[in-house]
Amino acid sequence: MSGGMDSALCAAIAKRDGYRIAALHLSYAQRTESKERECFEKLADHFGVVKKLIVDIDYLSKIGGSSLTDNNIEVARADLQNSGIPSSYVPFRNANMLAIATSWAEAIGAPAIYIGAIQEDSSGYPDTRKVFIDAFQLAVTAGTKPETNIIIYTPIIDLAKSEIVTMGLGLGVPFGLTWSCYKSCEPACGQCDSCMLRLRGFAAAGIEDPIRYR
Amino acid sequence: MSGGMDSALCAAIAKRDGYRIAALHLSYAQRTESKERECFEKLADHFGVVKKLIVDIDYLSKIGGSSLTDNNIEVARADLQNSGIPSSYVPFRNANMLAIATSWAEAIGAPAIYIGAIQEDSSGYPDTRKVFIDAFQLAVTAGTKPETNIIIYTPIIDLAKSEIVTMGLGLGVPFGLTWSCYKSCEPACGQCDSCMLRLRGFAAAGIEDPIRYR
Repeated sequence: MSGGMDSALCAAIAKRDGYRIAALHLSYAQRTESKERECFEKLADHFGVVKKLIVDIDYLSKIGGSSLTDNNIEVARADLQNSGIPSSYVPFRNANMLAIATSWAEAIGAPAIYIGAIQEDSSGYPDTRKVFIDAFQLAVTAGTKPETNIIIYTPIIDLAKSEIVTMGLGLGVPFGLTWSCYKSCEPACGQCDSCMLRLRGFAAAGIEDPIRYR
Repeated sequence: MSGGMDSALCAAIAKRDGYRIAALHLSYAQRTESKERECFEKLADHFGVVKKLIVDIDYLSKIGGSSLTDNNIEVARADLQNSGIPSSYVPFRNANMLAIATSWAEAIGAPAIYIGAIQEDSSGYPDTRKVFIDAFQLAVTAGTKPETNIIIYTPIIDLAKSEIVTMGLGLGVPFGLTWSCYKSCEPACGQCDSCMLRLRGFAAAGIEDPIRYR
């Protein structure tokens, strides 16, 4: 649960599905961490999570290769026409997230992992696609104890941002408590890839985004 | 490269295969860390590695569930007859290792990952088996950039410990610089699962282990 819209919606879906929630928050020295952390805590309270685990994976900033974690790379202005891999790509980030989540799930006996990956064409991250999640599921099944049966759910993977807004409103997701901007300063920049996707989503859903923009 | 025999042999094999070595060392707050780290540094010098990355994954100790990382669980005396999962099992540890290795490999353009997993029957860790590595390879292929083609090699996965000793001697692995004991104190305890496997391996190879035991 990052503090963003997608994982907030996943938490709401997991609750609707009848689960109690153990919320994993990953800090990876990204520029947005302080704001994301604040939103994570508020969302965790909102959803009444029964366990929280905050894991510092700042090795991703040592590994670099992404504008989100490497201070030598500028956060690119939104270029949603660009079909290549965006500069905010952190190599294989979701595998790191899912490996940690699986370790924790096996340790506490959780039967399911909800991840808010979305494979919207414009994002272009290879590790948000269903083909990756399916492969990782095989690794989870093969790499845990025989009696462990953890299922990875990607309930929003095929949703457009506008559908995330609409479904979230239906499930009572407090979008005013979420943060999407790649920069940490408030108000949100409104210019980075993530702000553009968010704003476009609210516009397409015909709903006003409750957070403030520059 | 942990500081143990298996990853030391993998490094020797990677060198023999013509690769320059970027060595990843993972510290996960295990009892053995100080001794393993010392051995890692000596082995890295020995093999002339061109890059080193040390990543602290002490979240595995927060997650717990293993005697290696959870100080509330006693390190079990060797019980190699026991066919179950040993108490030193860290849930899904190798997936965490491979996820970090893959992120780093993609960032630096490394074409191969060598991992010293061995699926010797007596170890019983689900994430050391070939079926797990094969599944993880699919996740790596699916979850990295299209132009990235990282191959995971498990050159010793089917070897018995005695074969690791024999092959290592043939490739000049300095076993005196390696550490296997689950406890951190020198000399090695000679009683934990890992010491027992090591001693049994040297005995079966008809070679004397160069390190000291209690």
